[in-house]
Amino acid sequence: MSDLPKFVTFHEEGPREGFQIEKRLYSVQDRVELVDALARSGLSQVQVGSFVSAKAVPTMADIDQVFAGITRQEGVRYTALWLNEAGFRKAQATAQVDISAYLMFYTTDALSLRNNNCTAQEMRERQDKWISLYKDAGVPIESAYIVTAFGCNLQGEVPIADTVAAARHIIKLAREHEFPIPRIMLADTVGWADPEDVKRRVGAVRELAPDVSIGLHLHDTRGMGAANVYAALQMGVDMFDSSIAGLGGCPFAAHANVHGAGNVSTEDMVHMCHEMGIETGVDLDALLEAAQVAERVFDRPLAGKLMHAGRPNRR
Amino acid sequence: MSDLPKFVTFHEEGPREGFQIEKRLYSVQDRVELVDALARSGLSQVQVGSFVSAKAVPTMADIDQVFAGITRQEGVRYTALWLNEAGFRKAQATAQVDISAYLMFYTTDALSLRNNNCTAQEMRERQDKWISLYKDAGVPIESAYIVTAFGCNLQGEVPIADTVAAARHIIKLAREHEFPIPRIMLADTVGWADPEDVKRRVGAVRELAPDVSIGLHLHDTRGMGAANVYAALQMGVDMFDSSIAGLGGCPFAAHANVHGAGNVSTEDMVHMCHEMGIETGVDLDALLEAAQVAERVFDRPLAGKLMHAGRPNRR
Repeated sequence: MSDLPKFVTFHEEGPREGFQIEKRLYSVQDRVELVDALARSGLSQVQVGSFVSAKAVPTMADIDQVFAGITRQEGVRYTALWLNEAGFRKAQATAQVDISAYLMFYTTDALSLRNNNCTAQEMRERQDKWISLYKDAGVPIESAYIVTAFGCNLQGEVPIADTVAAARHIIKLAREHEFPIPRIMLADTVGWADPEDVKRRVGAVRELAPDVSIGLHLHDTRGMGAANVYAALQMGVDMFDSSIAGLGGCPFAAHANVHGAGNVSTEDMVHMCHEMGIETGVDLDALLEAAQVAERVFDRPLAGKLMHAGRPNRR
Repeated sequence: MSDLPKFVTFHEEGPREGFQIEKRLYSVQDRVELVDALARSGLSQVQVGSFVSAKAVPTMADIDQVFAGITRQEGVRYTALWLNEAGFRKAQATAQVDISAYLMFYTTDALSLRNNNCTAQEMRERQDKWISLYKDAGVPIESAYIVTAFGCNLQGEVPIADTVAAARHIIKLAREHEFPIPRIMLADTVGWADPEDVKRRVGAVRELAPDVSIGLHLHDTRGMGAANVYAALQMGVDMFDSSIAGLGGCPFAAHANVHGAGNVSTEDMVHMCHEMGIETGVDLDALLEAAQVAERVFDRPLAGKLMHAGRPNRR
């Protein structure tokens, strides 16, 4: 019971994951307010939004204005998502963006086609260009995502061999292009993972490269999010993407009910870590305030549990 | 990863846990419809309701009519809750009730006073009478609950020694009164448990009596329900109380938002077990239909996740 990590890092993605699936547009002010509330909680990284086509994802419009409106907190990185070269260039051109460069690999054609209009193999080939792009920009490649690493709503089962093959390819690219192997992020994009599968896939990737950092991007789509985090902690995973109040979901991932498909809730998982004696560097009360901001902005009950139940009252 | 139980039993408590916290009254027909839907799913035990004062818990009125209205399924036990001798006698007098006799122990005076108007010690003394009552009735004592075994909203922390002391007392009673040690149910009545604490407390109780069956009654109050189930499975626990669609919550337990304080969701946890190769004897599709019935009856979005996301589409 004592081999859990001592410190766990949460990368907050609520402002990107949360707004991207909305039909309603939110004001720049609302989006800034949420980012600012999150940044006050001691989180080391907050993903502010995406540099994507405002036509495809209207709620991500004016992302540069959101960045410009932030009241910067020391020690916080304000990051962004992009899906192609043009998006990266826009992020780069926005002075306030803290570039956290990543590669993206898909295990299934179906979701890659929907997200990128190309097959998984084509997306893989595009990553060679992304690497050059990052090299030219002089930014380190921090992470490499394996999207739908556990299963895909559109295509079905993802064999563990496909997840491992993607990880092997990442390692090969790092060697060929002579950059340090980035953190490998296994993304349960659509909530297929179960705790034993988390252990199996993390274990299989770790066997390939025992010293490489592994992180998880988990959704609580089917109610196993917390169990999957716990399973990952038992495997020594110490880095998770998460969303305040459990916001989130992929707009193209074919969920029956997209609002139930959010990421694991940052504050619930921070609380779980703290209860187990794991540090996170996060002030839970401040994080719960950010969850309240999220609920006010989205104007509906959100999925987070602790924000509604309150912290345990220890005496 | 292979030491999880092969078969796990879920005792459905939704019809009792769900309705008991409601302000609105529901018709006998609605209550019967939910019980019938649950019983069609292959669950071996469905708790239909409580024999308690209709003045204290108005939604539990006419419980005898609910029992009379059920279309009985073979292999299903239709059980009930009582909090005192009068309640047990009423249950006993209702022909359709499958008596599943239990003892109840509290770790804190605060919740015992609210639920039973007596201290934890007085409640403990009352159990001697309950034992005689059950003996006279010729019913075996199947389980013994340790309420707030992990913490109490009203009183705060519950030292592990108090949980163990309650378990020790149960074992002592069984020896003194010469009945087989019942299954010891650790109840996280108000959602204080974390996965490591589940392991610690289950482990400590098992040390006392290695051959005694241990079950858990878990609430997902603070978003750790699934992680707690997974931790318990890793300890070999193979019996859980749960509620369809995550219904539930104690009406006297002082939650900030009682509707967020439900039990672990039966269908989400059955799904998690099945995904990990653990059998439950339950037809998940039929269980999801029961969750839909629950949502129709309660007429608001319920906490269950799988019912909204849909089952993973394997091809």
